[in-house]
Amino acid sequence: MPPVIYVINPNSSTDVTAGIDAAMAPLRVVGGLSIECLTLAEGPPGIQTQRDVDGVVVPLLALARSLEARAAAFVIACFSDPGLHALREATAKPVFGISESAALTAMTLGQTFGVIAILGTSIPRHLRGWGAMGIRDRLAGEVAIGVEVTDLARGGTLDRMIAAGMRLRDEHGAQVLVMGCAGMAGFRDALQAAV
Amino acid sequence: MPPVIYVINPNSSTDVTAGIDAAMAPLRVVGGLSIECLTLAEGPPGIQTQRDVDGVVVPLLALARSLEARAAAFVIACFSDPGLHALREATAKPVFGISESAALTAMTLGQTFGVIAILGTSIPRHLRGWGAMGIRDRLAGEVAIGVEVTDLARGGTLDRMIAAGMRLRDEHGAQVLVMGCAGMAGFRDALQAAV
Amino acid sequence: MPPVIYVINPNSSTDVTAGIDAAMAPLRVVGGLSIECLTLAEGPPGIQTQRDVDGVVVPLLALARSLEARAAAFVIACFSDPGLHALREATAKPVFGISESAALTAMTLGQTFGVIAILGTSIPRHLRGWGAMGIRDRLAGEVAIGVEVTDLARGGTLDRMIAAGMRLRDEHGAQVLVMGCAGMAGFRDALQAAV
Amino acid sequence: MPPVIYVINPNSSTDVTAGIDAAMAPLRVVGGLSIECLTLAEGPPGIQTQRDVDGVVVPLLALARSLEARAAAFVIACFSDPGLHALREATAKPVFGISESAALTAMTLGQTFGVIAILGTSIPRHLRGWGAMGIRDRLAGEVAIGVEVTDLARGGTLDRMIAAGMRLRDEHGAQVLVMGCAGMAGFRDALQAAV
Amino acid sequence: MPPVIYVINPNSSTDVTAGIDAAMAPLRVVGGLSIECLTLAEGPPGIQTQRDVDGVVVPLLALARSLEARAAAFVIACFSDPGLHALREATAKPVFGISESAALTAMTLGQTFGVIAILGTSIPRHLRGWGAMGIRDRLAGEVAIGVEVTDLARGGTLDRMIAAGMRLRDEHGAQVLVMGCAGMAGFRDALQAAV
Amino acid sequence: MPPVIYVINPNSSTDVTAGIDAAMAPLRVVGGLSIECLTLAEGPPGIQTQRDVDGVVVPLLALARSLEARAAAFVIACFSDPGLHALREATAKPVFGISESAALTAMTLGQTFGVIAILGTSIPRHLRGWGAMGIRDRLAGEVAIGVEVTDLARGGTLDRMIAAGMRLRDEHGAQVLVMGCAGMAGFRDALQAAV
Repeated sequence: MPPVIYVINPNSSTDVTAGIDAAMAPLRVVGGLSIECLTLAEGPPGIQTQRDVDGVVVPLLALARSLEARAAAFVIACFSDPGLHALREATAKPVFGISESAALTAMTLGQTFGVIAILGTSIPRHLRGWGAMGIRDRLAGEVAIGVEVTDLARGGTLDRMIAAGMRLRDEHGAQVLVMGCAGMAGFRDALQAAV
Repeated sequence: MPPVIYVINPNSSTDVTAGIDAAMAPLRVVGGLSIECLTLAEGPPGIQTQRDVDGVVVPLLALARSLEARAAAFVIACFSDPGLHALREATAKPVFGISESAALTAMTLGQTFGVIAILGTSIPRHLRGWGAMGIRDRLAGEVAIGVEVTDLARGGTLDRMIAAGMRLRDEHGAQVLVMGCAGMAGFRDALQAAV
Repeated sequence: MPPVIYVINPNSSTDVTAGIDAAMAPLRVVGGLSIECLTLAEGPPGIQTQRDVDGVVVPLLALARSLEARAAAFVIACFSDPGLHALREATAKPVFGISESAALTAMTLGQTFGVIAILGTSIPRHLRGWGAMGIRDRLAGEVAIGVEVTDLARGGTLDRMIAAGMRLRDEHGAQVLVMGCAGMAGFRDALQAAV
Repeated sequence: MPPVIYVINPNSSTDVTAGIDAAMAPLRVVGGLSIECLTLAEGPPGIQTQRDVDGVVVPLLALARSLEARAAAFVIACFSDPGLHALREATAKPVFGISESAALTAMTLGQTFGVIAILGTSIPRHLRGWGAMGIRDRLAGEVAIGVEVTDLARGGTLDRMIAAGMRLRDEHGAQVLVMGCAGMAGFRDALQAAV
Repeated sequence: MPPVIYVINPNSSTDVTAGIDAAMAPLRVVGGLSIECLTLAEGPPGIQTQRDVDGVVVPLLALARSLEARAAAFVIACFSDPGLHALREATAKPVFGISESAALTAMTLGQTFGVIAILGTSIPRHLRGWGAMGIRDRLAGEVAIGVEVTDLARGGTLDRMIAAGMRLRDEHGAQVLVMGCAGMAGFRDALQAAV
Repeated sequence: MPPVIYVINPNSSTDVTAGIDAAMAPLRVVGGLSIECLTLAEGPPGIQTQRDVDGVVVPLLALARSLEARAAAFVIACFSDPGLHALREATAKPVFGISESAALTAMTLGQTFGVIAILGTSIPRHLRGWGAMGIRDRLAGEVAIGVEVTDLARGGTLDRMIAAGMRLRDEHGAQVLVMGCAGMAGFRDALQAAV
């Protein structure tokens, strides 16, 4: 069986997984590796607290272990990168977290990046992450939209994201915007067009 | 019932808990708060990997919740500070981690501190922690002694700790030494005398 | 004679010392150490310039030396921490400065802290201090209220502090507020309630 | 015509280009993008000084412009990333530099990385680059082997690289090694096996 | 022949050179070194992109080489400091760049400095420079006035500079203002008076 | 009367002042400003502790005030820069400290600098200073020679300085050496020749 890139959504919302899956479309090229998006059944509906982050690591590692034989790589599709370092210790396969990857990619697109967070309480957790990565000097700032993960698909999210993006650009000097939640995947093009 | 400071050893080694308990002696003053040291039964024998760290958070939060009514404060007695931020989100009581507390105290005792780690694989995890705390400039360096948590009580540990401490002092310029594992608690006086 | 924690107000305003003394109340527990608040007679009415800071060190050291036999610890109760490192070199007793202690405590309460300074000219001095401590990444910002130390007890101070606190929280992203002058001690509860 | 990833060696040594081309082999997958390695005829035999770095930018931009219509992306294959930001300003196509890319990749493989530089005079230039990227906290250190670019293919290079790698690992605490010159591409496997 | 301090304007606008020359007046003291301001004929009218910066290095080095025998020192009079490190490698004479010099001088005048940039696209380039210098903690921020180098002498520039200066002072907390273009030299006194 | 640059040695050792005066020779050019080196009679024989540093500020400010009318600038000739910020607040004349000036100059001569300290106890004080300046990333390290200020003129100092300099260069990667005491002024040429 050909190797697969496993993209694991560590929350249990299949809507979020579907949104991630749709966002993978441009990466599914003929002859390329297969990409499978999975939902972590044991996860909470949204990962919003540090407890949510820490709590999904054990089941996420178990799921990854069951997939390891076929895995070309693992992608942890939650902006808090739960289990990123634990999974790296546990497998020899490449492991990516969407938060770390977003930041490293943003660093090739501009000198400073700004993050649109879901909740104000997410920001301290993100700041710890950028500090752990040693890249605080590249962060312009973070602005929260105040919407829970499970409410992202309701109306109003895009408008709030655009407002947050403009504030990051104009007040914080962000040259690149990073969407701080996997559940925002579907808003990328509209956000980019507006900002 | 009077309030209690709960010191939770998140690994399941009662030997380590006993060592922590003994180290509390000078803090048990007449009229002061009661201090109780507990072992997390669900923890691994030693917390040595990122998986160990993340994996104990859920049972540790459950234990803390069961103690909360009487708690004056919680101390997480593992140098990886598992669940520190998760427990802070979950309780209004003060929460301390021995790694964070050790670093902040060391910062009042000298300009740079060095850490004696148990294993080389612990060092990247610690570095992420110092980065998240934004205090990398205060760290002189880390040196590992290459001893597993459950082997700390066997012979040879003190000698390795003294050698590591001298290297941190002489090569890395550490002005303060931090013992990077709760299981090292009993070696403090001998280490200080030797270095 | 039992040991005493000496809290030294290095300015000569007994009003400020009285405010500090009142703020010590919750720390005076039965069976705990005695806490004595002293005024440095040789100090200026308020410590507002770098000259004020440097100028009180010699008399402050003399006062501490006269108290050393009975001292359990020294606390330098001025937000510029005058003589902190000089006193640490001169005594084996623990020495705390309220600025350093405030910052280290704030670092356990949130990821970023903001400082309410008395004067705009205090801010560069504070920034040098945070830089010397290596914790600039934890500082959200500083906002001055433009009130001299000796005028803090007059009307209007609290309103200015609340306005500064809100600006630090909303514009600078501060998660914890630090009051940048010992003379603000009495406003703590009202500020916390308002912000 | 299908799009091409252009890998430009900005020095004029076709040997170096051939080595880069050979190192591309594992990336040339069926169905993947075509990868073409080019030599900048106007470049010096090796890029070893800041003048060399700055001096190749104008011809490199001209070469890139001539290729732009077909380009899927550009890779500047010199560890000083000459013209990286200039080319990013000039084209909408993705532009990668091997130094920036090496560092960002190393940051996903370990907490600290060490660089094996060709000459001692390269190190200050690299340090400016890591500082500009804001990632100095992730750098364990740099060790030079003292071999000019055009001499890398002669005997002794690998031994020096292994010695430098061991020193970076054991004295500087590097968890990942980065080879600081495109001309070292052929030594990767042997270095990894030895260190 | 007596030694000369050569101030090289690396753009080809003789107006800018004349402005620099006028600004040298207070430094031309009896008995002091002679100061000559030169225009780099090969330069673009204004240095506004990274390509402009990198592109002038080769002719700038050639010009410096032709002057070296008589040179007491070289000053590169462009805020992007083109060729600063290349010229330092090429000559034993002291080499100064006005950006580096401005920042180091500003660091003796206040704890934080703000930069008035010409264009928004200049800011990322400046940020890379401050990062390479390792002084990001001293930068309060940058604000662009949106005026091209060749338009600086037209009306409206001073008003925009004053507005930018006030924003840097009031919103970013800048204690010192740095004018981010050699072409702004003539506005110094008026800016200082207004801000 | 023509203006004078006052170079104040804040310790009371006239030998040190004489050494500083001799080192001024190349700066005394025909037509240039007059340079006068003064000894602070109230200072200790050598400034070696934080108490020494803080303790000289009041008399130093008094001396400067008495000189202010004629002063073109003040130079505080002690590597701890005592009173630097206090004097800057007190006078409109330029004030330089030899530590700050040495570091800023070193930053134009190489990417990293190393400091030869007199005593091990000086190093934490210096580190606080580099932190306050926000330039810790430019410091390669510090090595102490273990010689008191008043013993610097005795035999053996140069040999120890050379050994320290070589260690800073070879182990710490320092590209520029800074002599960390005004009393070392006479050893500059011999040190440079040897290292």
